[in-house]
Amino acid sequence: MGDEDLHLRKFQKELSAGTVSLVLLAVLAQATEPMYGYQIAKRLDDGAGVVAGKQSALYPVLRNLSAAGLLDSEVEPSVSGPPRRYYRITTLGRIVLAQWIASWTATRDFVDTVLDPSTPQGAQA
Amino acid sequence: MGDEDLHLRKFQKELSAGTVSLVLLAVLAQATEPMYGYQIAKRLDDGAGVVAGKQSALYPVLRNLSAAGLLDSEVEPSVSGPPRRYYRITTLGRIVLAQWIASWTATRDFVDTVLDPSTPQGAQA
Repeated sequence: MGDEDLHLRKFQKELSAGTVSLVLLAVLAQATEPMYGYQIAKRLDDGAGVVAGKQSALYPVLRNLSAAGLLDSEVEPSVSGPPRRYYRITTLGRIVLAQWIASWTATRDFVDTVLDPSTPQGAQA
Repeated sequence: MGDEDLHLRKFQKELSAGTVSLVLLAVLAQATEPMYGYQIAKRLDDGAGVVAGKQSALYPVLRNLSAAGLLDSEVEPSVSGPPRRYYRITTLGRIVLAQWIASWTATRDFVDTVLDPSTPQGAQA
């Protein structure tokens, strides 16, 4: 029984590797102003757990996206606590997001076709 | 411009890490008899390129799934060439596949909700 859990955790981790970055870029592309980490996590709500396991897993991904030039960030003081790092998507980030969405859509449609053999492609077997 | 390609390749690689295993298990779960690598690749048709990049990328994944106990395999002589390794899904493989499908469905639905902000959850922003 432990084996199954191990396989599931590994699968979820692999699946989240790409999708967390995709989801973060998409949220910031839709945002009308820069957002800080906790705002983004709240925007994703419980769904963050679906792809990232826990909210804290979002922060290293935000840093990686910034380091890659897909996000810009700026630290601003906060009246209610420590300074916050605000993120916004860059022009490169928007270009990359469009490509990622196309890639996601193609992969998703292919996987769904294989999982449901009643569709034409699945019926080839 | 090279940057965008690099980001896209990295994203596709991350996305395929989990989905190739999922797709291979699903094909073998649907199969009525053991299949060898080339048969599976043909069954996936062009879609194999979508998730795996190229067909040869399927073989190490088949070996990994076997090593993990999710597939059984057996080498059989072939009349038309070298012996072939035939794969079939194990009981553990079927249990794990059901969990992976549930995980895939939850992740897919969450990503699609974030990508399309006209849906109720996306509208929270």
